[in-house]
Amino acid sequence: MKAALIGLGSVGRGVAEMIAQKKPGITLTGIADSKSGRICNEGIDIAAVLETKRTSGFCGDTAISAHDVITNADYDVLIEVTPTNALTGEPALGYIRAALLRKKHIVTSNKGPIALAYKELSALAKKNGVALRYEATVGGAIPIMHTLEDGLCGNEIVAVRGVLNGTCNYILTRMAAEGLTYEQALMEAREMGYAEADPTYDVKGIDAAIKLVILANTIWGNGTKLDDVDVTGIDLLTPDALRLAENGDCTIRLIAEAIPAKKILRVSPRLIAKDHSLVIEGSLNAITLETDMAKEITLIGKGAGSVETASAIIGDILYIRDHYDRRA
Amino acid sequence: MKAALIGLGSVGRGVAEMIAQKKPGITLTGIADSKSGRICNEGIDIAAVLETKRTSGFCGDTAISAHDVITNADYDVLIEVTPTNALTGEPALGYIRAALLRKKHIVTSNKGPIALAYKELSALAKKNGVALRYEATVGGAIPIMHTLEDGLCGNEIVAVRGVLNGTCNYILTRMAAEGLTYEQALMEAREMGYAEADPTYDVKGIDAAIKLVILANTIWGNGTKLDDVDVTGIDLLTPDALRLAENGDCTIRLIAEAIPAKKILRVSPRLIAKDHSLVIEGSLNAITLETDMAKEITLIGKGAGSVETASAIIGDILYIRDHYDRRA
Repeated sequence: MKAALIGLGSVGRGVAEMIAQKKPGITLTGIADSKSGRICNEGIDIAAVLETKRTSGFCGDTAISAHDVITNADYDVLIEVTPTNALTGEPALGYIRAALLRKKHIVTSNKGPIALAYKELSALAKKNGVALRYEATVGGAIPIMHTLEDGLCGNEIVAVRGVLNGTCNYILTRMAAEGLTYEQALMEAREMGYAEADPTYDVKGIDAAIKLVILANTIWGNGTKLDDVDVTGIDLLTPDALRLAENGDCTIRLIAEAIPAKKILRVSPRLIAKDHSLVIEGSLNAITLETDMAKEITLIGKGAGSVETASAIIGDILYIRDHYDRRA
Repeated sequence: MKAALIGLGSVGRGVAEMIAQKKPGITLTGIADSKSGRICNEGIDIAAVLETKRTSGFCGDTAISAHDVITNADYDVLIEVTPTNALTGEPALGYIRAALLRKKHIVTSNKGPIALAYKELSALAKKNGVALRYEATVGGAIPIMHTLEDGLCGNEIVAVRGVLNGTCNYILTRMAAEGLTYEQALMEAREMGYAEADPTYDVKGIDAAIKLVILANTIWGNGTKLDDVDVTGIDLLTPDALRLAENGDCTIRLIAEAIPAKKILRVSPRLIAKDHSLVIEGSLNAITLETDMAKEITLIGKGAGSVETASAIIGDILYIRDHYDRRA
């Protein structure tokens, strides 16, 4: 498989490193960060490019843009891993559209385009006979999309519940374990690299809500939008609330939940028994699918991380290689 | 897809009922229990056959054997769900061989043939250009084989750990929760339908060991045999041992574990922290895969049950329909 990689932040670097290190049969023919790009249809020397990026801040020529790479490189699959913009989906949305029009498969970790334009993009992919895959957008390394697509194939999914934001889960775990205040736990999460400088999207529940939208559209194709989700964050929780919960053998977790039959679509801090399978520690994620035949299936794993996210992306690429027959 | 169903115990009935009820596009053209069989290449009336079976104990004509159905019916996939014989794999092994030689896909819940003859059967399937699928043999409804095959594709699996026997897990859960003796908890498990009249295979750890052998062969193709597994059961555990564990915020679970690099291959009762993701309650199963990129991924779900097992079997059949290209 020939691939073009757009985005060289933590995820992009992880993908490039894993391709170079594990040699899964993927050749990078194009690469771009926000300021430069590089095309080499015979295969880019990944180690050299990563070294250049580290020392200079650029992965290639500033005269070559991401759009140039997408338009001109020779590749089968576009790996789109630029940062999420939840309001516009750009510039990723434009990148993905351009590649789909060139009949290139898409593998992305970018929540923006999938949450905002799933219907349009999946129709465009279908029309052009290519795959649109986005395993990395929800639950990091957890193969939730594969599970929905193949693992539980034949089942009707009745409900989905999940701990979809590792930052919140870390903060809640630490508040419960050590009696920290929200502010103390957030500061610790920042120091550990689990929270960004501006944690608003995480702690207000918006990141979890975006992931819930992606899950709902994938499962039910029901045109769910971010505005449809009732969202409450964790930023107003007190140590007292957690202490009270713990005294009753319970704890508090930020749960994202969708049950179409009950018109439930919400993200909120919930009181939950400590032995419940969604009670996971630290920055983990967990997702429970409630189905008609398999009943409840829960998946737990790392919700973020450079190499963990690369696992989902490389899995998507290899899935396309192994299974995709072009239906033009 | 046309399918022949061999075995009409709890699993077979579940499969037949789900095919009749959910209409996933599977037509049964042959059916057999241990005493009778029926062939109807235009499609068997499942409701009528199940009613006949319930009232008479036979699903068809006593002059027609399972082998007759396998040899003469017109089908794409053999659904082999007769009871497991861990010593010989028979009669399932013969059924599967016969169907493979007819170039029919195999979907089975039968641990015997897969644990005993994985190498032979997978080679025979490959040679005949058909699929050999056995999702239902390990973890019931948990899509562990799909996860290994596609979900974590590209990952190296370093270790596998699991709670693979629901009977043992139920007994240990009840001993810990209520201070029951092993005998009391076993009796309760029998009353709840979680333990068989002869629970030897379960409580001695043999059932879990067979499943571990299947996992090891699937992941590493390393010719693991049941004799290679160090097996200790739960039948000698005392309430005192569990009480001691619980005092230290731990509990005891029967863990099956394979780590080839450390030459570890064992099933044994293990002391384990209560907040560990393998500590699940009741008759659930759980499996953790340790991988190089995704790190630890845990799957939790129902390890048994008529409809839950049917979920795995129907998922396998639909996977063959959607993905399998014949490589003769």
